[in-house]
Order: sequence, then C-alpha cells, then structure tokens
Amino acid sequence: MKELVAGIDIGGTGTKFGLTDRDGNVLISNSIRTNARESFDTYLAELHAGIESALAQVGDGYQVVGIGVGAPNGNYFKGTIDDAPNLRWRGILHFIEEFKAYYDVPMALTNDANAAALGEMLFGAAKGMKDFVVITLGTGLGSGFVVNGQVLYGYDGFAGEVGHVIVDINGRECGCGRQGCLETYVSAPGIVRTVQEMLGWSKSDSALRKICYDDLTAATIAEFAQKGDPVALKAFDFTAKTLGIKLADMVAHTSPEAIFLFGGLANAGDLLFEPVRRYTEEFMLNLYKNRVKILPSAIGEQNAAILGAAALIWHDMDSKNEQSPQNISAC
Amino acid sequence: MKELVAGIDIGGTGTKFGLTDRDGNVLISNSIRTNARESFDTYLAELHAGIESALAQVGDGYQVVGIGVGAPNGNYFKGTIDDAPNLRWRGILHFIEEFKAYYDVPMALTNDANAAALGEMLFGAAKGMKDFVVITLGTGLGSGFVVNGQVLYGYDGFAGEVGHVIVDINGRECGCGRQGCLETYVSAPGIVRTVQEMLGWSKSDSALRKICYDDLTAATIAEFAQKGDPVALKAFDFTAKTLGIKLADMVAHTSPEAIFLFGGLANAGDLLFEPVRRYTEEFMLNLYKNRVKILPSAIGEQNAAILGAAALIWHDMDSKNEQSPQNISAC
Repeated sequence: MKELVAGIDIGGTGTKFGLTDRDGNVLISNSIRTNARESFDTYLAELHAGIESALAQVGDGYQVVGIGVGAPNGNYFKGTIDDAPNLRWRGILHFIEEFKAYYDVPMALTNDANAAALGEMLFGAAKGMKDFVVITLGTGLGSGFVVNGQVLYGYDGFAGEVGHVIVDINGRECGCGRQGCLETYVSAPGIVRTVQEMLGWSKSDSALRKICYDDLTAATIAEFAQKGDPVALKAFDFTAKTLGIKLADMVAHTSPEAIFLFGGLANAGDLLFEPVRRYTEEFMLNLYKNRVKILPSAIGEQNAAILGAAALIWHDMDSKNEQSPQNISAC
Repeated sequence: MKELVAGIDIGGTGTKFGLTDRDGNVLISNSIRTNARESFDTYLAELHAGIESALAQVGDGYQVVGIGVGAPNGNYFKGTIDDAPNLRWRGILHFIEEFKAYYDVPMALTNDANAAALGEMLFGAAKGMKDFVVITLGTGLGSGFVVNGQVLYGYDGFAGEVGHVIVDINGRECGCGRQGCLETYVSAPGIVRTVQEMLGWSKSDSALRKICYDDLTAATIAEFAQKGDPVALKAFDFTAKTLGIKLADMVAHTSPEAIFLFGGLANAGDLLFEPVRRYTEEFMLNLYKNRVKILPSAIGEQNAAILGAAALIWHDMDSKNEQSPQNISAC
C-alpha cells in the first residue's frame, strides 16, 4: 500500500483538504465551507466524508497514514483550536481528540503559518535549511519559525508570532485590542490603510483619490504602483520599511538563514522584495548584514496550505526515522 | 577520579576562571588580566598556567573533563571570538583550536549571555524549564535564549540578541554604528543617558542636577530613586517601559516560560522588576498575558560567569547521556 497523508487547512471561509504523497504531490484536493454547520461535530463529520470520498477517488493501493491540520490559533501541544476569532465555534475546540473517532493514525495540528514553514522545508525553497522564517502576507501577517530543523513552538505552542509585534504603541488600532501591531501596517488591509493615511497627509496627485476605502485592495495598489502612481509607490516603500525594521529585530532574536515572504501582498514581487531587502539590510546589526536571504516561497499558492498541513506528519515521520535505533551507529 | 569542568569567562578587563563540579559548586576560582599581553598566545599560556595552578590547589582525586568558555562575540559553531570590540586582539581568535594544545578534553565557547542562560538552567532558577530567556543588564544588554532545552544559536551562532533590537530608528547613537538600539536605553549607561535627557527636558527639582554625566552611575540613580527623587523614579519607569515593549515583541517571537533579569541594573530589585512586569503585561498580545514570569536570577553574581561557562560542557554531557543507545528503550 502506498502511504498518503491527508492535509487539512481550516480557514475562516473554507476548509481545504487533500491527499499528499512523500514527494509533495497533492493527488486530489477538495474543500467544504467552514462555518456552514452550527455544530462542530457535524463539521467534522462532513470533513471526514470529504476525505473518504477523496480516498475512494484515488483508487486502490493507497492508505492514509497520518493527518496534518493547519488552523487559526492552532495549539500544537494540545491538538486544539483556541478561541479562533474567525470561526463560529467559541472556546477550545478539541479537533484531534474528536477526529480520532474517525481515524486511528498519527495526527498533528498547528497554526497555518507554522504548517507553511514545514511545507517550505520539506517541499519548497527551504529544503536543506534548518533555520528560517516563513511570513504570510494576506488578510493578516502570519509567521512560522524553524530553528535547528524544528518548528519553534515555545513554552505553550504559540511562539513564532510576528504579526503582533509592536511598531508604534500609539499606532493603528488592531483587531487584537492593542495599537500599532505590525499586521496593521504590513498585510493586504495594512497597505490599504497606509494609502488612506497618505492620501490625507500628502498633496501628490494620485488616481487612488478616486477609489473609496471600501473598494481599495492591495492588488489595485500594486497595479497603480507598477504604473508609477506616487502614492502607491510611497505606500509600498513605507510598508517595506516598516517590515524591514521589524525583520531586523527578528533576525537579532533568531538569526535565520532565510526569510520567505508568501501570500497576497508578496505577489507584488520586486515592488515589495527589493525595498524589504534594502531596509532589512539597513536596519540589521552588522553581524547579520549580507547574510540573510529574503526570498519568495517556492510552493504554489494553490497547494501550499494542504502541503504545509501534511508536512506536519511527513516531518514527524522523518524525525522518527532519524532517531530510530538502527540509525545510531554505536548501537 | 572526580570530574571537574573548568569555566572561563573572558571580559574586557579580567578573565575569570574556576573549577566546577556537576552540582554547581565552584571549588576554586581566580582571574588574570585579559588585555595585559600583546600576544594572544601568551594570554592563553597564562590562562593555562592559572588553571593548572588551581587544579594543583584542589588536590588529588580530580580531573578536568571539559572546558567551557564565555566570551564577547563568542561563536559557538567555530569556537572562535569574532572581532570583539573590547579585546585588544583584532579579527578572528581561534580560542578552542589553540587551547586544544593544552588540554585534550571537550571544549565549547559561546557568548557570555548564552553561557549565563545555560548556567541558570543547570544550577539556577530555570531548573526544569525548557523555554526561557536570560537578559544581563550591565554595561551593555546581553541575552541568551533557551528553546526546547537548547541554546538558540540560529544559522550562524549569533541568535538570541536583544541588546540591538531597535527602539527608535532615529534614537540614541549606539556603539554598533546604528541608532536607537535597546541597550542605549536599557543598561547601566543607558539609564544614565536617560537621566541626562530628562534633566534637560523636565523642570522637576532633582538632586541629580548636582552630578555631572561622567560621575553619574546606575547605582546612584537607584539610590536617588529609593529616596523618591522624581527624575530618578521617572528614569526607572522609562527604562522599564522601553524594556517591556521590546520584551513583548520577544515573547511573541519565542513564547518563553520565563524571562530572567540579571546584572548591575537588575540589582535595583523591585524598582525595576515591578514596572518591567507591568509594562510587559500591558504590551503583550492577549495569548501570552498572565503567563510569562519575569524573575531575578538565582545564581550569585560572583560565580555566575564561571558556572555559566562550565554549564556549556555539563549540559553537553547531560544531552549525550540522554541520547546514548542504552537510554533508547526500543534498542
């Protein structure tokens, strides 16, 4: 039987799932709506039915040997989802404990950015690296740290958080209840807020003055910047500078080999990468200068979340093989 | 033969060394001047003679089974001291390679704050903890991170740096050539600079107005604060707030169980700890609130550096014992 790992990515809108092999191929994938069901149990039953249906479609000769889950506020140590603000079910959701009713295989759960980091290490541009950071720039700023070949979980499973480091204690209001968090500046909505502030502050002519806040997106700002709009360009520069300053702090703390930027805002390419590299270098301590690579992810956005979730299990299996007695020469 | 580990702490002025046992006792210690000799080789020869003399004094029945070194800009991966600004010898000093001429035992070298962190874990208040940070507040701000029971070295051995995260890119001039580094605010000289700025800014009566910059010390400021001097009190509050904001970022990155404050400025006790705890809580993301302990070190300052350096070796020996084949039940 060929071994497959199911990767599940729970988002606020949809839950994607797929069956993956050890080479990073997604054999089949599908999705269900996350918040459609009133009961979490019904949601799990639906997810189980989806995986079974996918398994039936890939045909004979395959077995599921593990299930990895990426989830908002995913607690790796407990296998729970803790008070995720974008899910309809409140409190602590015992995902793994409950899903064990369907499958008696190893399961692991963590937040989506940690999963993305493992995915990058096993199947993407971080192959062979042991110390790196993945930052996802979407509706928020998510992040996962790998140190010495392992995800950095910290004492409680919640380490590796970059979105809520503080840029300015008197800065922008954040969904977390504080002010000035990095993700209020560096994320898709963050750059929209930056443009709004700049339109108020500056006198520059800009076609962006014709678009109201609610209609403005990061993609539109990128498009205008490509055409040379001065406010859009300035907004990218400010976003990159703000990120660069905080990446310099992050480098001081963890000294990674590389930082991968991923997700919506990273699709702006050089518009973002060039100034982020420049500002991060400028604000880094000498010790680290000209050494830390800032790179795009090498995993297609389509499958990244599923592969990342599945990587939780493939990575555990690799680690166990490395530690097995037959691999210890002195034994 | 009873096993001893030599701990060596290289400072800009003096090099302390001592012989330690596995229980954290320093059987004997001594020191030599660090920068007295023109040649690094002569310095090493003098250090060797000092250790031999100490060994002769502890009497028969002991052997040195390892040597641990804490050094400024200590590179753990290479066993070198890289361009330490406070040493007279320039460039890369191959300490371990050269010291192997004297002793054929395991040796390890790292910066003094990483060593302090291991010392705290093996012999101090971090016993049993696997995720914590030690911050030394002296003439600079040093720091060592332990994650999952191991020192966090990062890709190049230079992770765990908190002194040079940036408080304000337009802030105070730092010895590293940049502006606004945390240690320009939070360290013994940092609080002196804060008092100077406050004396200019405020109109408050303060006895500190009678002391010139060059004569002012952190200890004096603490003494005046204890007596209720308004500028001295405000300087401690500002120092604690500045540290608290950056500790909140550090908690987001690494989610430690505890943060230990150590060294000159930490001797101010509650004058520093109370507001640091309050501000760190205030600026931390909800996830981490009421969870991270901020504590004094439990290792006396007298022996901390030697015990920390020696802990490098004792910790390696413990780790190897844990991983040896006979400890793997499946074997």
